[in-house]
Amino acid sequence: MGNSAAVVGLGAMGLPMAAHLAESGPVRGSDPVEERRRLAHREGVLVQATPSDAVEGADWIIVAARDATQVHEALFAPTGIAAGATPGATVVLTSTIGPAESAALSLKVQSRGLHFLDAPVSGGPARARNGDLIAFVGGSSRLALPASELLSKLASIVHVAGPEAGDGQTLKVINQLLAGAHIAAAAEAITLARTAGLEPARVIQALQAGAASSFMLGDRGPRMVTAHGDRAKVRSRVDIFVKDMGLVAELARQLHVATPVAAAAAQLFQLAETAGLGAYDDSSVVTLLSPVASRESV
Amino acid sequence: MGNSAAVVGLGAMGLPMAAHLAESGPVRGSDPVEERRRLAHREGVLVQATPSDAVEGADWIIVAARDATQVHEALFAPTGIAAGATPGATVVLTSTIGPAESAALSLKVQSRGLHFLDAPVSGGPARARNGDLIAFVGGSSRLALPASELLSKLASIVHVAGPEAGDGQTLKVINQLLAGAHIAAAAEAITLARTAGLEPARVIQALQAGAASSFMLGDRGPRMVTAHGDRAKVRSRVDIFVKDMGLVAELARQLHVATPVAAAAAQLFQLAETAGLGAYDDSSVVTLLSPVASRESV
Repeated sequence: MGNSAAVVGLGAMGLPMAAHLAESGPVRGSDPVEERRRLAHREGVLVQATPSDAVEGADWIIVAARDATQVHEALFAPTGIAAGATPGATVVLTSTIGPAESAALSLKVQSRGLHFLDAPVSGGPARARNGDLIAFVGGSSRLALPASELLSKLASIVHVAGPEAGDGQTLKVINQLLAGAHIAAAAEAITLARTAGLEPARVIQALQAGAASSFMLGDRGPRMVTAHGDRAKVRSRVDIFVKDMGLVAELARQLHVATPVAAAAAQLFQLAETAGLGAYDDSSVVTLLSPVASRESV
Repeated sequence: MGNSAAVVGLGAMGLPMAAHLAESGPVRGSDPVEERRRLAHREGVLVQATPSDAVEGADWIIVAARDATQVHEALFAPTGIAAGATPGATVVLTSTIGPAESAALSLKVQSRGLHFLDAPVSGGPARARNGDLIAFVGGSSRLALPASELLSKLASIVHVAGPEAGDGQTLKVINQLLAGAHIAAAAEAITLARTAGLEPARVIQALQAGAASSFMLGDRGPRMVTAHGDRAKVRSRVDIFVKDMGLVAELARQLHVATPVAAAAAQLFQLAETAGLGAYDDSSVVTLLSPVASRESV
C-alpha cells in the first residue's frame, strides 16, 4: 500500500492536520463549507468538491468531522467516501464519536471493502498543525501497524488502547471525562478564590505546585483569569465538551457506572452553551460562575 | 523570641511534625489519646499531660488538631493552651478549619495576649515526617516573617496567601476543592475504563501524558487499581475529605458561588463514609463506583 492521503472534513482539526501532512507530500481534501476549502487551498491542500472526489486513489482516508452525524454523511452520502474510495483503502477516524458508533461504523465500512481504524485524537488545532497530537487507537496490530507511519506524522504520542474498533474511542471518552471535570473544577476554584479576595493568578501558580495540580488548571486556569469569554482566543470550543461529556454520559449509562462528578461538569458545559457560549473557548465556562468579567481588576 | 516549640495534637499530622522537629531540638507535645502520647514519646517528643503543660515557655505553639471543635478544645479548655502559654507566644494553626473559624479564633487568641498565625498544611503524614509539607499562610509579614524559620522546618513550600488570618485557610480550602474533585474524577475514569474492558493501569499511564492529567490521577489512580479499600495502606483518610469538602461547601455558600463539581465530589466522599470507609484511604471511594474488588483481575 502507498502513502497517499486524503482528509475529509477541513474544520478546526482537519484543516491543520491536512496542512501539516501537505508539508511532506500531496494531500487531497474536501469540506462542505466554502470558507474552509479556501483556507485549505491556501495551506497547500489539493481541495476537491466532494469527499468521493477527494478520496479517489487515496490509501489513507482521514475523517475529521465534528460528530457522528457528520461522519455518517462524509462516509455514506451519495458523493461520500464510500462512493469514491479505492477498495482496500483505510478509513482513519480521528473524530470523537464514542465506542458504540465507532464499532458500528467499522462493520459498515468493512462491508464496502474498506479497512477502518479507530483513532480519535486530542491536543487541539495548534498541536494538529505541528503533527504533535495524541492519538488513541483501537484496532488489531494487522490494521494499526501499517498505519503507524501515517499516525506518527499526525501525532507525537500514539496510545493503542485495545484491539477493537471503539477501544480508541473509549480511551478518548475517558480522557474527556477527566479533562472536562478538571476544567469545571478549575473554574470553581478560580471563582471561589477571586470572590474570597485572593489573587487568582497567584492561586493557580501556588496550587499547581502540589496535590491540586492538573494539566487543565495550568492550561485553562490562566485563560479563565485573564481572557474569559474572549471569542478571538478560541482554542477548544465549549460545544465540543457538550458533545464529549454527552459521550461520557452515554458510555456510563450503557455500562451502568455512576459518574456524578462528570455529570455535574456536563451540566456546566451545557449551561454555558445555553448561555450562548457554545463557540467560545471552553475556559469561558468560568463566566457562568463568576459573571462579573472585571471582578479580578477590582 | 526564641525557638522553643510545642505541638498540641499528636495525630496523623501532629505526630510526624513533632517527630521531625524533635530531630533538631527539644519539642514538647500533648494529645488526649494515650496511644498517641506513647508513639510520640518513642519518637523523642517530650510528652506532657495537657496542652497547658506542653506549651509552658514555648515560643511557638503548633496546633495540629483534626477539626474546629478539637482546635477550640485544645486552645480554651481549662487545661488548654491559653491556660499555660507565655504571653507573646505565637499559636500556629496547621489544621484545616476554614477561613471564618480561623479569623474568629485569631481574635480570641489575640485577646489572650498571644499571636496567631493561620498556616494549614498539605502533604500527608509521610511528608510531615520529612519536613516536606506545603504550608498555606494567612497573616501579615510582621507575623509571618518571624515564623519563617519554623515553617521552613515543617514545609518545603510556603505560600503566603494573604495578610489576614483565614487567607491561608481559604487557599487550603480551594486546594481541597481541586484535590477532592480530581480524586472523584479519577475514580469515575478508572471505573469506566475497567468496566469497558480496558486495563486501568495502562489507561492511567496513557492519560497522565496529556490533557487529562492531574496529580491525583497519578497518585491515587494506581492505588485505586491495585489496593482499593486496603485499610493497611491508609495515607489520607476519607473522613478528612468529608470535612474538607464540607468547608468548600460552607465557603461557597457564604460567598454565593456555585460549585456543582465540588458538590458532586463531596457527595461521593460522604457516601463512602456512610458505607463505612471513613477511616480508609481516600482512594477507596472507587469501591463505591466499582464494588467488585476483583473485577480488574477478570
